Amino acid sequence: MNVLVDAGLALAKLREKRPLIHHITNFVTMTDCANATLAIGASPTMTDAIEEVGEMAGAADALVLNLGTLQQTRRDAMMKAGKAAAAAKHPIIMDPVGAGGTTFRTQSAMALMKELPLTIIRGNLSELLALAAHKSGINPGVDNHATEVLTMSLIHDIATTLGTTVVVTGAVDAVSDGTRSILLGNGCPMMSYVTGTGCMTTSLIGAFASVATPFVAAVGAITAMGIAGEHVAATNQNIGPGTFHQRLFDELYAIRPDAFKIEGKVLNYHE
Amino acid sequence: MNVLVDAGLALAKLREKRPLIHHITNFVTMTDCANATLAIGASPTMTDAIEEVGEMAGAADALVLNLGTLQQTRRDAMMKAGKAAAAAKHPIIMDPVGAGGTTFRTQSAMALMKELPLTIIRGNLSELLALAAHKSGINPGVDNHATEVLTMSLIHDIATTLGTTVVVTGAVDAVSDGTRSILLGNGCPMMSYVTGTGCMTTSLIGAFASVATPFVAAVGAITAMGIAGEHVAATNQNIGPGTFHQRLFDELYAIRPDAFKIEGKVLNYHE
Amino acid sequence: MNVLVDAGLALAKLREKRPLIHHITNFVTMTDCANATLAIGASPTMTDAIEEVGEMAGAADALVLNLGTLQQTRRDAMMKAGKAAAAAKHPIIMDPVGAGGTTFRTQSAMALMKELPLTIIRGNLSELLALAAHKSGINPGVDNHATEVLTMSLIHDIATTLGTTVVVTGAVDAVSDGTRSILLGNGCPMMSYVTGTGCMTTSLIGAFASVATPFVAAVGAITAMGIAGEHVAATNQNIGPGTFHQRLFDELYAIRPDAFKIEGKVLNYHE
Repeated sequence: MNVLVDAGLALAKLREKRPLIHHITNFVTMTDCANATLAIGASPTMTDAIEEVGEMAGAADALVLNLGTLQQTRRDAMMKAGKAAAAAKHPIIMDPVGAGGTTFRTQSAMALMKELPLTIIRGNLSELLALAAHKSGINPGVDNHATEVLTMSLIHDIATTLGTTVVVTGAVDAVSDGTRSILLGNGCPMMSYVTGTGCMTTSLIGAFASVATPFVAAVGAITAMGIAGEHVAATNQNIGPGTFHQRLFDELYAIRPDAFKIEGKVLNYHE
Repeated sequence: MNVLVDAGLALAKLREKRPLIHHITNFVTMTDCANATLAIGASPTMTDAIEEVGEMAGAADALVLNLGTLQQTRRDAMMKAGKAAAAAKHPIIMDPVGAGGTTFRTQSAMALMKELPLTIIRGNLSELLALAAHKSGINPGVDNHATEVLTMSLIHDIATTLGTTVVVTGAVDAVSDGTRSILLGNGCPMMSYVTGTGCMTTSLIGAFASVATPFVAAVGAITAMGIAGEHVAATNQNIGPGTFHQRLFDELYAIRPDAFKIEGKVLNYHE
Repeated sequence: MNVLVDAGLALAKLREKRPLIHHITNFVTMTDCANATLAIGASPTMTDAIEEVGEMAGAADALVLNLGTLQQTRRDAMMKAGKAAAAAKHPIIMDPVGAGGTTFRTQSAMALMKELPLTIIRGNLSELLALAAHKSGINPGVDNHATEVLTMSLIHDIATTLGTTVVVTGAVDAVSDGTRSILLGNGCPMMSYVTGTGCMTTSLIGAFASVATPFVAAVGAITAMGIAGEHVAATNQNIGPGTFHQRLFDELYAIRPDAFKIEGKVLNYHE
């Protein structure tokens, strides 16, 4: 599949470029996001002070905004960083952690979507459905689809509604930019016993987005994380979540560009 | 011992229910608390924004308030979250990190005790003695007991003074709800070389408290952590603190309900 | 080399004393700094609340100020903690993370240098050069030296300009107190794929500084971290960054005082 070949090329390019990925992210998974960014071959920065976040985001190659443990001050910093990244025409990736869970989180995600030219939004299905429902006034999971099963038409509809490239991760992962849509099947169950695997995937999307189109970047990041998880599980069938967690960085570091086309599992693809 | 059988039943129930444990906790051990909560079989949330903490705590099955790296804003959020948890009749567990160490920390713990119906308080002996001394005006470690050795009568006195279930962890662990008291002997010395083993135990108490009485919840969480530590040490006698740290999550994940009655070490019990 | 013998003696002394090292540090590497402090044999505290930071820093044996993820409130807390540490005549170690990268970070580092009697400053070469350039009005990397290669004369000039003991870490490490200068060669390339190895080194400097002169403390901490990294790499040639990260704590814990004089690599020394 061409998109997997392109993802492999993007990984090679990213390791050569070593892009700077600025994060404004949550306190629970911040360390892991920094280490995932390093492991894949990019460089993380993490400041969220309003005094300097514009300078940092303007100097970086991509910006990752993660809404976990959000505060009003950090939301303001996200706006400022986002404007600087937009002015520099750098990709902006949002992870709307908890959207749909509380009013503050949903409204903050909506405000960032409205004010910033977001390149990619990654979340779980309920978060993306909450944003789509808020934006359109209808709930695509309820009104347009019988269930909340992740299908090609659902991911396409979410992308069209939100007007950007969207990524949903879970047991099955999906990406759509409104033109191309894909369902991906890499990964392993132990990932749900480690906090931050979703946040780390968003950081990887930021790294890939600095060297590839949004669609290829999303596919590359998801597939890298999924293959890394499979590699960890393959070396130890009875692994627990603590060892799994640390070994994930080993495998992100070790993954080779040709792994994408050899091991990537495309379940469905349409353009 | 019946309480260990009950703790095993609670673990089975918790894994079936997968309760949501909301934390307002410190920045040093936040990631580890989230991962310990996941490993035992519950789900963590961690926000501390005043705008949403009431919604979050109201929707969760238990609330954990940890006073490490406290700030005034987080103290306010703890009050708000605590009121929401109390209104929903959900258990509230406080970890008074640093109580007795600074004025701000002691007064904040006292204020939370006064305003919220705390279900369980877990700390080390000096923290619990500081709270008991402040509440009663006398120091139970000095006035009522010759030394600060953890005894059945001391843990009972602390529970009676504070008027709730109390848990002291250290080389020996103790729980009392004022009626029943217990001394427990699981664990291993390497735990003191990893930051956050106490905080993680408090998170586990939160998980157990959503499916069991405060006394059984405390015994279950302490024993789970102690047995997990022993299992790690048993697989590698010369283990260092880094490897120990990660392997602890593996063993929390792997622990079976019948381990409590088989491996739990009750040193003393009275009801 | 005598300084390595002295560093070994300092390690033995530190493990006997178990000093309390208060940190005001960044959110990315806070947990790792706490665990590194524990592994080497000291005790970490981490609060940054203005209400209590003076009490904490006054009671501790050394103070570590790390400027990563800086906020104005934390800068204020650093000032207050620094005054308390200075009044108690305890060593103060600053890690000017990001100095030269943003205006806020550079000015904050300069303000801390101006107001506090800093004992040791540790950073990478660009951070230290930025501070030296700001203080002197000339850039020692550009004006006094042909390149930014770390040499004996460059580290000496930085120490003289900043008027304190300075530590630069990188592929080669260097320390100067203005009288004695040293270049050190321990470490391994994998360190740059784990976030926080620099911050952890600063924490170790804090631990050593509570029992040794600034020069010996810096040499001890750098050499301990470098030897620990080499030990990890020696046990597994193909290790990845996740496993490396955790094993580093094992080796910091296991390092013996005589390792310094046996394995320490002095590339150049002048007094």
